[in-house]
Amino acid sequence: MEIGIVGGTGYTGVELLRLLATHEDAEVVLITSRAECGRRVDDLFPNLRGLYDLAFSEPDVVSLAACDIVFFATPHNVAMNLVPQLLDAGARVVDLSADYRIRDAQLWSQWYGETHSSPELLSEAVYGLPELNREKIATARLVACPGCYPTSVQLGFMPLLARGLVDAQHLVASSASGVTGAGRQAKIDNLLSEASDSFKAYGVNGHRHLPEIEQVLSDVATQPVRLTFVPHLLPLVRGIHSTLIAQLHDGAEDLQALYEQWYTAEPFVDVLPAGVFPQTRTVKGANRCQISVTTPQERDTVVVMVTIDNLVKGASGQAVQNMNIMLGLNEQAGLRQVGLLP
Amino acid sequence: MEIGIVGGTGYTGVELLRLLATHEDAEVVLITSRAECGRRVDDLFPNLRGLYDLAFSEPDVVSLAACDIVFFATPHNVAMNLVPQLLDAGARVVDLSADYRIRDAQLWSQWYGETHSSPELLSEAVYGLPELNREKIATARLVACPGCYPTSVQLGFMPLLARGLVDAQHLVASSASGVTGAGRQAKIDNLLSEASDSFKAYGVNGHRHLPEIEQVLSDVATQPVRLTFVPHLLPLVRGIHSTLIAQLHDGAEDLQALYEQWYTAEPFVDVLPAGVFPQTRTVKGANRCQISVTTPQERDTVVVMVTIDNLVKGASGQAVQNMNIMLGLNEQAGLRQVGLLP
Amino acid sequence: MEIGIVGGTGYTGVELLRLLATHEDAEVVLITSRAECGRRVDDLFPNLRGLYDLAFSEPDVVSLAACDIVFFATPHNVAMNLVPQLLDAGARVVDLSADYRIRDAQLWSQWYGETHSSPELLSEAVYGLPELNREKIATARLVACPGCYPTSVQLGFMPLLARGLVDAQHLVASSASGVTGAGRQAKIDNLLSEASDSFKAYGVNGHRHLPEIEQVLSDVATQPVRLTFVPHLLPLVRGIHSTLIAQLHDGAEDLQALYEQWYTAEPFVDVLPAGVFPQTRTVKGANRCQISVTTPQERDTVVVMVTIDNLVKGASGQAVQNMNIMLGLNEQAGLRQVGLLP
Amino acid sequence: MEIGIVGGTGYTGVELLRLLATHEDAEVVLITSRAECGRRVDDLFPNLRGLYDLAFSEPDVVSLAACDIVFFATPHNVAMNLVPQLLDAGARVVDLSADYRIRDAQLWSQWYGETHSSPELLSEAVYGLPELNREKIATARLVACPGCYPTSVQLGFMPLLARGLVDAQHLVASSASGVTGAGRQAKIDNLLSEASDSFKAYGVNGHRHLPEIEQVLSDVATQPVRLTFVPHLLPLVRGIHSTLIAQLHDGAEDLQALYEQWYTAEPFVDVLPAGVFPQTRTVKGANRCQISVTTPQERDTVVVMVTIDNLVKGASGQAVQNMNIMLGLNEQAGLRQVGLLP
Repeated sequence: MEIGIVGGTGYTGVELLRLLATHEDAEVVLITSRAECGRRVDDLFPNLRGLYDLAFSEPDVVSLAACDIVFFATPHNVAMNLVPQLLDAGARVVDLSADYRIRDAQLWSQWYGETHSSPELLSEAVYGLPELNREKIATARLVACPGCYPTSVQLGFMPLLARGLVDAQHLVASSASGVTGAGRQAKIDNLLSEASDSFKAYGVNGHRHLPEIEQVLSDVATQPVRLTFVPHLLPLVRGIHSTLIAQLHDGAEDLQALYEQWYTAEPFVDVLPAGVFPQTRTVKGANRCQISVTTPQERDTVVVMVTIDNLVKGASGQAVQNMNIMLGLNEQAGLRQVGLLP
Repeated sequence: MEIGIVGGTGYTGVELLRLLATHEDAEVVLITSRAECGRRVDDLFPNLRGLYDLAFSEPDVVSLAACDIVFFATPHNVAMNLVPQLLDAGARVVDLSADYRIRDAQLWSQWYGETHSSPELLSEAVYGLPELNREKIATARLVACPGCYPTSVQLGFMPLLARGLVDAQHLVASSASGVTGAGRQAKIDNLLSEASDSFKAYGVNGHRHLPEIEQVLSDVATQPVRLTFVPHLLPLVRGIHSTLIAQLHDGAEDLQALYEQWYTAEPFVDVLPAGVFPQTRTVKGANRCQISVTTPQERDTVVVMVTIDNLVKGASGQAVQNMNIMLGLNEQAGLRQVGLLP
Repeated sequence: MEIGIVGGTGYTGVELLRLLATHEDAEVVLITSRAECGRRVDDLFPNLRGLYDLAFSEPDVVSLAACDIVFFATPHNVAMNLVPQLLDAGARVVDLSADYRIRDAQLWSQWYGETHSSPELLSEAVYGLPELNREKIATARLVACPGCYPTSVQLGFMPLLARGLVDAQHLVASSASGVTGAGRQAKIDNLLSEASDSFKAYGVNGHRHLPEIEQVLSDVATQPVRLTFVPHLLPLVRGIHSTLIAQLHDGAEDLQALYEQWYTAEPFVDVLPAGVFPQTRTVKGANRCQISVTTPQERDTVVVMVTIDNLVKGASGQAVQNMNIMLGLNEQAGLRQVGLLP
Repeated sequence: MEIGIVGGTGYTGVELLRLLATHEDAEVVLITSRAECGRRVDDLFPNLRGLYDLAFSEPDVVSLAACDIVFFATPHNVAMNLVPQLLDAGARVVDLSADYRIRDAQLWSQWYGETHSSPELLSEAVYGLPELNREKIATARLVACPGCYPTSVQLGFMPLLARGLVDAQHLVASSASGVTGAGRQAKIDNLLSEASDSFKAYGVNGHRHLPEIEQVLSDVATQPVRLTFVPHLLPLVRGIHSTLIAQLHDGAEDLQALYEQWYTAEPFVDVLPAGVFPQTRTVKGANRCQISVTTPQERDTVVVMVTIDNLVKGASGQAVQNMNIMLGLNEQAGLRQVGLLP
């Protein structure tokens, strides 16, 4: 299979290259960047030396459409302008940006600050969370790969909400992410001298991932949900940890058994044994979500802890997983990296 | 004033020495350690070279009782055995350990795993949170210095609970602490190679600070409160960040104004302007608590963010603040360090 | 091929498991630990969940000898007592510890503080640096896998010394290592709260890797060499960076060309283009050594910079590389991990 | 005393404010920034809340000249344009930038890429290393505060070179700095996601601090010296560690005694006991230089290790020390911060 990547100079781009370098059935043949056009990929990312004989090129519809899958590893507001032409030319697209995640074009505009340029595709785009939408993904032309925080929060709350076990009006997600979540962009706030050796909440009054999370969780719950979502910035490179809290309607259910059964067939969701809590380092570099569920002090409140690597199961790994499903390949191809512990 | 320190080889010990080195009216004349007896203080802690001509000595009741204030910077289960003799000998004590924080001896035993050896002092001991108990502290013989997490959670919830504005049965605290909270003890879990570059929750099913927090917040609320307390381990040395979440009975109150007024006279509590969120680095090394309050999306849930340096306002700085109050000194003496940013 | 590991609870043990999980021709069938006997491997190392259905067992000569290769991932002073029996029973051994690295038993005792218990094997043991000894390794019964610092210093100085281009009496190596180099042992000095956010030299007056480095470099130079070796502790988990400095006899040689040619056929040594310097993060998790050579200000002094991951090319990756050579397998089997950047 | 600061939005600016907040005889009355004009200082740097009622203003010669001392905390190429007017107006200046550090205007241009705009002041400017030039500093109008690396390398080599004990043609400095050395500027290379969890050399072929170091060391040695200077980037915020290596002419001298005597009267240089090596964390936040000297293996090579906080003794602390000397104040005023350990 031949793969094209639009916008390969960011962290999701280099991570796609890292994962696909070990994929038995897919090869990256094209990677675009206007800013770095002509530069060798392994000059920008020396970890790839010896693996790719490839340079960044200008984006070009014809060449991209000739690929079996095109990934968009761009900031938001890019894919929505180029995807319509690519689909018309017969391409299938996995968009890692936010452009097609929210079904309501007006809601999207409200959070992303621009008018959506291809709203007609919003109803066709499949939300690329395989644990929710595997069958639709298989036949999709356009997959909107979930955000990193949303992946962790949705996988953590899904069993509780699908079963109607908690107060869906007062969900809490206290999440923390490594700084690669902010992308590879020169910003003073993300300098090592600013973000290292510190911890803070941000976006508390409204983070762009909030409407995306609520949309999907409302679908799962078959009722509108309300989430208080507090993201925090961790002084580390990779990893998301979400601590989810909800009030139980009835504490009698065996939640450990529920979670184990719910995810028993999922290759990339690992429910930990009772009493073992996840750490971000255990999934570093791996396309894996680890989950624990517990009811502290046997009171009426459930706590779910979820970890992913924001660049893998939270972005590029999930994108490859979607690609594998779309192309009928082994869902684990290219995704057998083991978490880098220690 | 002459100061003695029992158990000076841990992090709260060296931090007391750092702070008191700049105190205009107090001098450390005695510091004990059985394990390091005879070793110079500045040999163990080279940052103190030139500041102290002092070696660790064996603990001795007579010498300690001659001090104006004795600090216990020991693990729990030490102070409760020695404090009765010191009080009898006329000493005044600030205990940084957990031994006298919980009024109910049985509850204490349940969480700390031993029978309390001086339960008769539990009712006399004053909980050393100056923002709550300044007057009682002034005349106390025995002050139980609050835990690090409790300081942050109590200062953050206090105005809301005192005013009865939130559902006291469903409080949430998602807190995160640097590893010095675990003390200076050789444990594999706290090696740099284990705790660095990672993030995890721990103690979710019952952390020892839970009963301490609930005791004080119940006093403030004049009703029993219930807290879901999820502590997390940060890959950094110093700092606590607590994200507090509660359901508002009525969203009409101006919470920013409430917090600013509540703490207006407090020298070490700094309510940040609306929309500014605290970071742990801003208070690093300083005896300062910074607080933000907000109501995301103008819904029915309030979020309070609190930062302290766990070794300063969360331990040794607060202990010096208590000492200053007990001795009638300027409350800010020895506590003028500016947060080390960057 | 069936693989046994003696002493699998340390960092080189878990790293062998991580690498061998992706090896197409080898399977770990046995892993020993007295302390953790009976405990599942993936309970101690949750990144391995789903990859190994294996528990730690007591070491047993018969079972170990039945393996095609036995790795020793133990502290020094363990292998030297067990290896003789294993060799007698027909096993082939790759020892990751220091027990067989130094040919002179007396010199070994001087640096490691004990009498060597199987000195008769010292002359047979092959020093497992494939770039130096590939042919001998192929037929060896016993391979002594090099230390982490020595690997970086030897690969960096080898071309210069083999060609006699520098003053071999005044070599300098200023090296820096992540804390996993110190192993998975509970020591106060290696706590995150002690080693994080700091940098220091250590072992300056005599580090155990000094005689090992000088032995091999003397062989290469065919004359005794003298090295001033200053190791430093980095506040990070993985990675070694060695800055090597030597006085050139004659500056006319094209050193860039020399290094590129020297290592042109080596799959795991990557000489960077002129002017590009290596970073530890680029080789993180990968069995790769990246090298730069330069002559600052065109004076008479050469600077060579070398990076490896101390747990991979500096330990377990190199051990697997040795195994592949010994068993006639593809030298890159199990070693195709890409550096985890960012 | 009234103090003005030109260019207060960088790290040396906020550090001057932190130190001067505790100075008993000096007050910052003026701080300029074109970019942040009108913004409160404590809005940009919340660690200063409650300490300064000050906003950034446009630079203005008249107001600045009315100050007793004006600090330049600007990038290079700024001071050289404004200082002449300030000196004419009667001001005394401490320049933290590189503009007046190198006596030879042509050499300066070669390294800093521009023609010097006030070369007539280069011979008047006093190099502000108090341990070398205290008397000249006392009466100077213009002090050029040393660079951070140079401070550490010069203090470390000074006794050896002044006494002619080493080969001055083959000095080596392998130095490492925290990222604040690169300033508060938005650059991708200094993002936490790029610089964290990694280590690398940079500027090996020519760092701007090289000519500054060689100029001063040549003065000290009374002969031209040649230094191989290899700076490295540490994944931490503050701290410089320099490992200095030189070949001894004669190993008989008691170097420990030499260093202790050389610096015995210096308040901010601390020669550590034999066998104790410095760490950057021990001097974090303090105006202190800690030095160790040793001769490994009793061979012919000496190793000197030096630590400073690059923002304090390497910049703003040294600037305040210079100011104190110029104004006849206690040299330690404002500089009594204790190293923040842990």
